[in-house]
Formats: sequence, structure tokens, C-alpha cells
Amino acid sequence: MIVDCHGHYTTAPGELAVWRKRQLASAGQALTAPKITDDQIRESLEGAQLKLQRERGTDVTFFSPRASAMEHHAGDAATSLAWSQVCNDLIHRACTLYPDNFVGVCQLPQSPRVPPATNIAELERCVKDLGFIGCNLNPDPSGGHWTDPPLTDRWWYPLYEKLVELDVPAMVHVSSSCNPNFHATGAHYINADTTAFMQFLTADLFRDFPTLRFVIPHGGGAVPYHWGRYRGLAQDMKRPPLRELLLDNVFFDTCVYHLPGIELLLRVIPVDNVLFASEMVGAVRGTDPETGHYFDDTKRYVDAVTWLSFEDKRKIFEANARKIYPRWKPGG
Amino acid sequence: MIVDCHGHYTTAPGELAVWRKRQLASAGQALTAPKITDDQIRESLEGAQLKLQRERGTDVTFFSPRASAMEHHAGDAATSLAWSQVCNDLIHRACTLYPDNFVGVCQLPQSPRVPPATNIAELERCVKDLGFIGCNLNPDPSGGHWTDPPLTDRWWYPLYEKLVELDVPAMVHVSSSCNPNFHATGAHYINADTTAFMQFLTADLFRDFPTLRFVIPHGGGAVPYHWGRYRGLAQDMKRPPLRELLLDNVFFDTCVYHLPGIELLLRVIPVDNVLFASEMVGAVRGTDPETGHYFDDTKRYVDAVTWLSFEDKRKIFEANARKIYPRWKPGG
Repeated sequence: MIVDCHGHYTTAPGELAVWRKRQLASAGQALTAPKITDDQIRESLEGAQLKLQRERGTDVTFFSPRASAMEHHAGDAATSLAWSQVCNDLIHRACTLYPDNFVGVCQLPQSPRVPPATNIAELERCVKDLGFIGCNLNPDPSGGHWTDPPLTDRWWYPLYEKLVELDVPAMVHVSSSCNPNFHATGAHYINADTTAFMQFLTADLFRDFPTLRFVIPHGGGAVPYHWGRYRGLAQDMKRPPLRELLLDNVFFDTCVYHLPGIELLLRVIPVDNVLFASEMVGAVRGTDPETGHYFDDTKRYVDAVTWLSFEDKRKIFEANARKIYPRWKPGG
Repeated sequence: MIVDCHGHYTTAPGELAVWRKRQLASAGQALTAPKITDDQIRESLEGAQLKLQRERGTDVTFFSPRASAMEHHAGDAATSLAWSQVCNDLIHRACTLYPDNFVGVCQLPQSPRVPPATNIAELERCVKDLGFIGCNLNPDPSGGHWTDPPLTDRWWYPLYEKLVELDVPAMVHVSSSCNPNFHATGAHYINADTTAFMQFLTADLFRDFPTLRFVIPHGGGAVPYHWGRYRGLAQDMKRPPLRELLLDNVFFDTCVYHLPGIELLLRVIPVDNVLFASEMVGAVRGTDPETGHYFDDTKRYVDAVTWLSFEDKRKIFEANARKIYPRWKPGG
């Protein structure tokens, strides 16, 4: 079975964006949920994620709301809660319509400088009531201004206690950037991945939470490319070796859109710490003129890595996902 | 000849740091320059950069003040100017004592929200009076808050006009971070490299300045690892191919501290766009237990890349530096 652990509902029916626009213009007034039919949901997925799953031979996608639209920096905590509920409910409907193809991962109602404990109720609702198996955690709810404490600060601990209790992992995933220095998918996303890893390296978070698990997307940002730098920095700081310090808790996905990058990832990061993902339909939608295939068809790159054993590939494509997302029970 | 295009004076005599401390405590009062003898300078270099040059077989280092100590966020523009003059003068003395081993690259007296044109006088002094061949340009003088405009904004154009006139390149290099989210050498440096590249990708800076040249250090941040992502993003945005759009103007150094990273860099980035560098004595000072050699002994990694021709290596080690830093005249 081929599990894609990182997909967003980037093709949601236009009514969702219209609702969001109304919400942001409504100055806190409560709105009824957007009217979207099951047929609209089917149509939005059949020609996109489902078509690509079939074409590429992937079976199931861990599916969350569009990351760039989370916009935790817009409005306040109440805005963020209402928007997250709407988005998560829509994910739940997609997963209910296609239970073999999609499994829910939730957006959290984060807001800058608002304590992360406020996210617990929506997390519990999604996991316990809707059957979701993970969440996306934004390390910078300010959208490129980085005004909240690092992920290793006790500020985040109440949320981590709940993640541990529910036994669900968090994918570290920022949203769009409102800082003109940072292009969202070309800089802010990648920077956040790198930043989070270095935060984990310098603190003792996983001594406090030995079973807490983070997936760092986009191949871990810059980390595998600079793996020697990170090993060296840890050593200079008298930290334990990275495997011992981080690799029971930190995992990387395969959203790296060319073969040399995937090969590097799989050369330096232990195979137990890599999860297959494509982020389709996502950041890069075109076809690579050098290969004739979609840039984000990452399964082709993993398939092309000749030195991986069958067992290695089984881990990357399925077994690691079962281990890291234990609430996922296929066909259950 | 082996040219290391990226070295900082991280081993400067302690008097420099003492002076800086006094400066920051002096509330703008003018101070006389720190008293540092030629013997102190010799001593600070003989056991460090010069010893390592000899051991590793590198000939000359393009040498600039310690990057993490530039601290453009500390004090105001006058503070930054006085500090830059002191640091650049010290670099000049080191280069004068060891003209075969060091060539000067200057720190600019940047300050957050202060127009970049204010850097021109110090740049001209360093290039015209002191014989420096390049500068370090901080894309985030705020130290991790990213409050200034992107490098592609017209805000920076007066400085670029001077760089073009003087025919000197700028290395994109942030300083330390005063944002607790960003570890300086483990996150802020790498993020800035990635961010700058994406800024260049989305704008037409090099249409306006066809001969302006930037070196992106630390192997280009995350960029080579995500080269497929950047090619794909450019294509989705209807930008020209990256080679055409950027590669006459943007270059990467080899400060990547393990062989798999260097191999990736040299697989995806044309050899004409890669400059040898180690950043020694710098961010990572230890020995890699996996190899028994210094992490930052990047010459070993480049030497170990078997598929590079003699001519390729000559470009990386010397010829590209001559092309990008035309004011450098060895033995001149």
C-alpha cells in the first residue's frame, strides 16, 4: 500500500473561499457554514487528487485543509476557530465520501500570541469525533513575523500533552506569509522546516515528551542537505548525536521535487525516518521538461532510487506511516 | 591556486570584543580605535586560519569581519558605521600583514530601516582606499525580524548602482539573530540564503542590473536540495528558466559540511556557478567522527567528487573567483 502522508485540499469548491472572504469582512459576526454539496466535493476531487492517485499508483492521502489558506494571522482566535471548523468539517466530508482514499488531518485554530492550549478542543473534536489521525501545527502563526515562542518553549506544552494523550503526530507547517521578504512556498515553508529542526536540536523537548512526534515536511527544509552542519553543530554544543537526540521523534517527508534531492535525503536520513509524500495538488503543479513528468510526482523519484531494498521502500511507503500515525487503521 | 571565497575573522584579538562592548554601552559617544598590535593579529591568525590553510592546501581566503558580530540591529546607523570601520580596518591590517593569504571583503554599516545608500561611503573607502574586492550584504539588518524590504526592492538600488560601478560582488550574509526562533548559524543563516534566492527568482532585478553579482553562501541554503521545486515554481509563475533568469548573477559557495551535500550541489548547479569556500574558522569547528576530518574541511569533499574534470575543479577553486571578483589580482 502506498500512503501519501501530506496532501491539502487545495481544490476545494469556490464557495469555501467566498465564505472565508465574507468571514474576514464580517468583523466577528457568526456566519452559517458554506453551502457545498457532496457532488461539488466529488467533482473537486475526481479530476484532481483522485485522478492523480490513480495515475501515480498511490492509495491513500493523509488529507488536511489548504495550508496557505490557514492564515492564522488573519482576524483573531475566534476567527481562526470558526474557519478551522469549517475547513476541518469539509475534510471530514471528503474522507467520508472516499474513506479508502483520504484520511483526515486537521488544521488548528491558532492565532498569534494566543496560548496553544486554545487549540485542544478543536484537536479533540477532529480526532475523537471525526476520526482524524494527525494535525498541522504552525510554528509561526504570525505569518512570517515569527512573534511566538519557539516550538520547544513551555508555551506549547499543554498542546503537546494532548497530542501525546491522543497519540497523534503534528506536521510542522506554516501558512502563507504576510512578510514581503518571504515567498510562501519558495521560502517561508522551507525556512520554517529548517527553523523547527534547529529548535528541536537545541532543546530537550523530547526528554519531556518521549513519545511526541513531528513530521517535518518538504523533505525537512534544508536539513538533509546540511546534515553535516547539523551533526557538527550538535557536537560543538555537546548535544547527543542527532539520531539519539531527535530521530525517535522527528520524521521527514519526501516532498522534494527532483531525483537528486530525494537521493540525498535517502542517503543521509535513516529510512525509518522518511515518509512518502507528494503534497499534490500543491506548491508546484507543472511538468518537469527534463523528465516529462510532474515535478510533484515524488513516487517516481523514490521508485528510481536503486539501492533501497524492498523492505526500505515498504517502510517509506507504508510501515512508517502506520508507526507514526497509529490511529490510522486502513479499512477499519 | 585554491581560493576560499568565504572566511571571517572569527579569531580576532579579544580587544575587539571589549571595544564593541564599550561602544554599545557608550550611548553614541565616540571612542578611539581599539589598541591591537601587529603581533596580536599575527598570533590570532597563525594558529588558526593560516595553520588551516597550510594543512588543507588552500592558498588565499577572501576575508571579512566576523558575520555574527556585525549585529546591524544593535545601536543605530552611527554605531554601525563606527563598528564597521573598526572591523574593516582590522581586516585591512590582516591583509597587509599576509597579502598572499588574505584579501579583504568588507562589512557594511547597515542599520534596520536606514536607506542602503548610507553604506556607499564605507564601501567606497574599503574598495578604493583599502583594496577590498567585495562586501557582505545583510538582507535582514533587523536580526531575525525581517523588517526591511526584500533585496529586489528599489530601496536597495542606490547601493547596487555603486556595486556595479565598483565591479564588486556582494555575499548575502545575515548576522546573529535576536529572534529566539532562529538559531544564528543553524537556522537564520540558511533561511536567509533560501529567502534571498526566492526573492531574486520572483523579481526582475537582473534586468535592471545585468552585471550585479551575488554569492549565496552555505551552499545556497536549501536551494540546491530543492532545485526541482525552484525550477517548478519559476515555470508555474511563467518566469524564464533559472539558468537564464539568475545564473549570470547568482553564485553558490561550497560551505556544505558533508560529502553527500557537496555532491548534490555539484550535480544540480552548473560548475560555473559554484565557488570554493569553507567559512573556516566558523560555524562548525569540530571533527566529524564519521570521517576523522574537520566538518568544515570542504576541500576534501570537492576533491572527492570523482566525476568533476580538472577544468571543472579549476573553475570551482579559482577561475570562478577571478570572474566574479575581478578586482582580485593575485600577486598584484
